[in-house]
Amino acid sequence: MKNDLIDLCPLRVRFSETDAIGVVWHGNYLRYFEDGRESFGEHFGLPYVDVVKEGYIIPIVEVTSQYKHSLHAGEHATIETKYIDSPAAKIKFEYNIYKEPEHILCATGTSTQVFVRMDNNELELTMPEFYEKWRAKWL
Amino acid sequence: MKNDLIDLCPLRVRFSETDAIGVVWHGNYLRYFEDGRESFGEHFGLPYVDVVKEGYIIPIVEVTSQYKHSLHAGEHATIETKYIDSPAAKIKFEYNIYKEPEHILCATGTSTQVFVRMDNNELELTMPEFYEKWRAKWL
Amino acid sequence: MKNDLIDLCPLRVRFSETDAIGVVWHGNYLRYFEDGRESFGEHFGLPYVDVVKEGYIIPIVEVTSQYKHSLHAGEHATIETKYIDSPAAKIKFEYNIYKEPEHILCATGTSTQVFVRMDNNELELTMPEFYEKWRAKWL
Amino acid sequence: MKNDLIDLCPLRVRFSETDAIGVVWHGNYLRYFEDGRESFGEHFGLPYVDVVKEGYIIPIVEVTSQYKHSLHAGEHATIETKYIDSPAAKIKFEYNIYKEPEHILCATGTSTQVFVRMDNNELELTMPEFYEKWRAKWL
Repeated sequence: MKNDLIDLCPLRVRFSETDAIGVVWHGNYLRYFEDGRESFGEHFGLPYVDVVKEGYIIPIVEVTSQYKHSLHAGEHATIETKYIDSPAAKIKFEYNIYKEPEHILCATGTSTQVFVRMDNNELELTMPEFYEKWRAKWL
Repeated sequence: MKNDLIDLCPLRVRFSETDAIGVVWHGNYLRYFEDGRESFGEHFGLPYVDVVKEGYIIPIVEVTSQYKHSLHAGEHATIETKYIDSPAAKIKFEYNIYKEPEHILCATGTSTQVFVRMDNNELELTMPEFYEKWRAKWL
Repeated sequence: MKNDLIDLCPLRVRFSETDAIGVVWHGNYLRYFEDGRESFGEHFGLPYVDVVKEGYIIPIVEVTSQYKHSLHAGEHATIETKYIDSPAAKIKFEYNIYKEPEHILCATGTSTQVFVRMDNNELELTMPEFYEKWRAKWL
Repeated sequence: MKNDLIDLCPLRVRFSETDAIGVVWHGNYLRYFEDGRESFGEHFGLPYVDVVKEGYIIPIVEVTSQYKHSLHAGEHATIETKYIDSPAAKIKFEYNIYKEPEHILCATGTSTQVFVRMDNNELELTMPEFYEKWRAKWL
């Protein structure tokens, strides 16, 4: 892999994303990871709407998240989304969420997506052509 | 209207539904109202899946909510959902959320839904036949 | 009232905010209204953190929302938050959510908040001094 | 470990938990896992409120989730929550979510929690006494 594909995306924590302990509820980090994926897609020319136009949905089949430091309502953060290349017909990302401006690592995570054809709802076992082209362009 | 159509539905408050003040975030009461509507639909033979089978979606066009008393994680409550009859092609409900076992009124609310045909995405200005029949049966 | 106090705040719709009909779930507009309030507070010098420093929380006691037009995942919108002055010890806002760039009105809403002292958890029946000062500055 | 500690808890999928693909948004499974933990705690005498009374919070430090099969609005499911014993000062669970009545495995997951003392906000490196006693009773 020639290049690291990394997107940085700003985040502002919503009050509604906190829980009774006063910090962001752990499940809401999966929203932040999704923000990161969408920002990555726009940055590198692979937005979700284009995937749909190609006739695919790309459901999450696995996600992991590790929590290091809390985020509170109103705080600012950066979502770092890194593409992890894979020979399989899967899209993998790693995430780091940093509290700003101190740049404290609050959470890390990973996600894996697969390609499912919308016309027959079947899992694609090989990479779709549009995705091969995208990889050839960037990697 | 001959009969009051009222459904009672139990509720358990989730930790993830609370906010940094330690109580249920006000927007989450709209989830409880939705729980109430679905429970009402099952109780009185008008579930959402049947509406879809008839070729309609019934989007919310207005919702209101008033807050009287807080709910905390793990607390039990009752959702009271009351059908409000209307001559228009609209479905209206009133809601009361009571903390149990003290039966303290925590929130009230209202919702209004309309009928939209799925085949042409147009608003139905008169009541669909299946809904007329349902009203004739119960009211 | 000499001046209209209005804040405009950009919004990007998250995939996780949509529902099975394919549009933003109606309850999530209350998150957008909250984004609008927070943006208003920063714009006009009344952020939530300062309210807390003054010893108050400002819970929502009423919210209403009317829905005109749908928003979909990835779409851009503007949250317009307008301060509605009131002689009571209440904070009132009106909201308009516009889909951009077409500037289509998707939803309207209102909210009312009250002042509750954190030391005794009691409702404040007259305006706190810090809020009087803020009003005197802007209105 | 003498006994398997497993809790089964019923689940009804909310409309508001689905996304624009028409199925439960993947992040919402973390709510179901939390439902499972809470149900486990009540079943086996370790509810969250008791942990707080002992002076601890038990934040999640890691969560994983794997997705096998979709859940739709209104569907019924079972949350299976299994305690995984550990010599460390950590609480670990495994989860299986089954769609009912077909009993199809929809998702699996794991979570790890640690003990943090509320008085000094510090991580507890050894098991708190109340937790030792709980383990001695059940394992």
